[in-house]
Amino acid sequence: MSAYQPVTPEIISALQAAVGADAVTTAQAELELHSKDQSHHHAHLADVLVYPTTAEHVSSVLRLAHEHLIPVTAWGVGTGLEGSAIPVYGGISISFEKMNQIVQVYADDFQVTVQPGIGHKDLNAILARQGLFFAPDPGANATVGGMLANNAAGIRTVKYGASKDNVLKMQVALADGTLINVGSRSVKQSSGYDLLHLFVGSEGTLGIITEATLKLVPVPSLMSAVVAAFESVDAAVEAVVAVRGSGLDPAALELIDAAHCRMLRMTENVDLSDHPTLFMEFHAAHESTLRSGLDAVKEICEELGAISFRATTDPAERRQLWHARHHSYEIMVRSHPGYQFFIMDVAVPISAYPALIGYVEHLKQETGIVAYMIGHAGDGNIHVEFPFADQDEYERCMVMNGLIVEKALELGGTSTGEHGVGLGKARYMAKEHGGALDVMRAIKQTLDPKGILNPGKIFIG
Amino acid sequence: MSAYQPVTPEIISALQAAVGADAVTTAQAELELHSKDQSHHHAHLADVLVYPTTAEHVSSVLRLAHEHLIPVTAWGVGTGLEGSAIPVYGGISISFEKMNQIVQVYADDFQVTVQPGIGHKDLNAILARQGLFFAPDPGANATVGGMLANNAAGIRTVKYGASKDNVLKMQVALADGTLINVGSRSVKQSSGYDLLHLFVGSEGTLGIITEATLKLVPVPSLMSAVVAAFESVDAAVEAVVAVRGSGLDPAALELIDAAHCRMLRMTENVDLSDHPTLFMEFHAAHESTLRSGLDAVKEICEELGAISFRATTDPAERRQLWHARHHSYEIMVRSHPGYQFFIMDVAVPISAYPALIGYVEHLKQETGIVAYMIGHAGDGNIHVEFPFADQDEYERCMVMNGLIVEKALELGGTSTGEHGVGLGKARYMAKEHGGALDVMRAIKQTLDPKGILNPGKIFIG
Repeated sequence: MSAYQPVTPEIISALQAAVGADAVTTAQAELELHSKDQSHHHAHLADVLVYPTTAEHVSSVLRLAHEHLIPVTAWGVGTGLEGSAIPVYGGISISFEKMNQIVQVYADDFQVTVQPGIGHKDLNAILARQGLFFAPDPGANATVGGMLANNAAGIRTVKYGASKDNVLKMQVALADGTLINVGSRSVKQSSGYDLLHLFVGSEGTLGIITEATLKLVPVPSLMSAVVAAFESVDAAVEAVVAVRGSGLDPAALELIDAAHCRMLRMTENVDLSDHPTLFMEFHAAHESTLRSGLDAVKEICEELGAISFRATTDPAERRQLWHARHHSYEIMVRSHPGYQFFIMDVAVPISAYPALIGYVEHLKQETGIVAYMIGHAGDGNIHVEFPFADQDEYERCMVMNGLIVEKALELGGTSTGEHGVGLGKARYMAKEHGGALDVMRAIKQTLDPKGILNPGKIFIG
Repeated sequence: MSAYQPVTPEIISALQAAVGADAVTTAQAELELHSKDQSHHHAHLADVLVYPTTAEHVSSVLRLAHEHLIPVTAWGVGTGLEGSAIPVYGGISISFEKMNQIVQVYADDFQVTVQPGIGHKDLNAILARQGLFFAPDPGANATVGGMLANNAAGIRTVKYGASKDNVLKMQVALADGTLINVGSRSVKQSSGYDLLHLFVGSEGTLGIITEATLKLVPVPSLMSAVVAAFESVDAAVEAVVAVRGSGLDPAALELIDAAHCRMLRMTENVDLSDHPTLFMEFHAAHESTLRSGLDAVKEICEELGAISFRATTDPAERRQLWHARHHSYEIMVRSHPGYQFFIMDVAVPISAYPALIGYVEHLKQETGIVAYMIGHAGDGNIHVEFPFADQDEYERCMVMNGLIVEKALELGGTSTGEHGVGLGKARYMAKEHGGALDVMRAIKQTLDPKGILNPGKIFIG
């Protein structure tokens, strides 16, 4: 690691000259607001916080940091779940909160160009007027820049892909402040190396995103919802495979495990039985498409022994059916007063999903630890949620976390499906990537030889 | 450029020791068969051709080449259109013709792992038994390795994406022979840098693909076909935008320009009028979905002034309707005896498609040159096809090619949508990528410091 230099009064003055005096702060309260995300990772203060409004501001800040060997970490809105935006080496935190404009809507191209600080929900509220939306939805109102830096995904990924599948072009500030464009507004491009996807998911360690052109899709005119319970996770996963194999193209295909269903029922009387339950959503342009799709899904679920099956095409009923899924986290938190939650994220090929979930069940039984599972079953992605009240319990969660990650890797999966590496998953990179990690390090060294970009993330040591 | 070393008898012996005596040849006839692809680029012989059957063979060949500073170019089956597989610096050509096995089918995961030398049509013939297929289809029976190295696309890309969207994991041999794995069989992965997409489309200049796990999709149970003619390209493109905006999710959305339609009609009495004509295909799991989709498409086309509209859900009629599109190249070649064809490839945002095509029309009128256009309109991708009979005509095509590429770039597009950079597009890289080209060069230098991997491609000088 480089020997970073302190943020001196001269650096502060230079930052003020670069981005404006109002856009630079060292106020303790503001630094604290930007010291911690929604994860369990420890807070760490930056030495100075800057609020750029243009790519040129970001470029100037980086030029300065590069010259003076000061760490730079980008901040979206703090909804991360692996500490990726925590400035663990101090230095400069670049907050994108004021760089949140829509640059241009290209309605005929199903594209929009935005500044990275815009929240995806805010963006979609505006795009709805034109019948378009940006599909990835990690739940919280994460910024587009944060979603891209982290390759966030969410419940719509089974149909529409993750963030990386919904971006066409970005402007990126390199470590020395150089601004480059990667990708193209042409949806097809076979020209040179795919730098776009190298920067997407690199968590601000190779460059900082200053603008992005996103793929949009038409707002579906009709949606249906299905909730189906099964005797076992195996049966539920068989249904997942059958639904996907049928060509029905679900827009969401979620699993809530029996323990979680029970907790939802016990605490808020949610109408679920203590069984693994699938939540599905289908999008269509025509009522008849939607109806024939639901008939097919019903047939599949019943054939595979569904205990219960509820379906609707009515928007109000749909919201009610999905209530338990959409509010599962809040209900869980409310039902465990005095507890914090550690939420872990792994993903495996769908065929290995029953084995992974079976392993977590086995660990729970063996240790008596409380845990709930909720997952994007259509993608083989699962989140295990552990309540903890003290340091001992927290450490037990960490042990479980490690075991589950190892299991996911053994099953041909990944240590993180959508939360990113950040601080928590860095220790698993060598095991997951083997010799490819050396290539990642070499690229990091090439693009950020001084190591100023978000140090402490992805790589250990 | 490095000072490459000759392929000496000692090198030949070492290659024979590494991959077997039968798998190494310097026979002129075989070298000639591997010296030229389907493009207009000049042939060039390798000094030696090797036929590995395992990744370890490829690794050994690279280790040797790396040590002795010998260029290495990978060869699939020679269907490339930009000379990417031509060994312009001689050295070793690695043919994957005998490394063409299916390693494993993961039916429940909708995945297959293959060796790179398998033809995608051959692969799909086998997968059809399980109701699955690998969607990208560049037309010719290209190898999967070649398709990935080149990010090939084709007519199904509007729904299913290009090659890069249909691969999950690869094994890659680096310049020094090290084998690494990139990507994951988990469909979601947010772990470390996306090296998978860095190698996809890098045309063998960063590493050589030795195995790939592909995404598969269910064979659609039902398909429909639509052929609709319009007064102008503008009107046709309006229909393209409207169809995509309607959420109908076409599986193909192709354009044949008026000149090409006329040529098809004049030479083989194909039932088309002299107007820009859209060819569409839709996939569905249910008859009612297909029918309601066709009704909607008809409404859109008629509203936008279609001159003619034909649609069918009958498989035999569908093949007949699409005959002109599927055989357009052969018919064109047959109708121009004594001519060769230069086929160029650019892509733009769909909103710029009419401007691009209008520009080509303008060039044709101004110069009197003969050219036909056929394109993946749903993706904004167009191929301009120029017949030429002699060097003078060829050079006129090259001038046109340059002007059209410049126009595509000016319209926010790319110099190549699906044919790759190879030899022909290298000169446009600086203009298309600006400062990002320096990053590409830096990555090339990092991963292939001796410059042995497919030299002469992508980068000039």
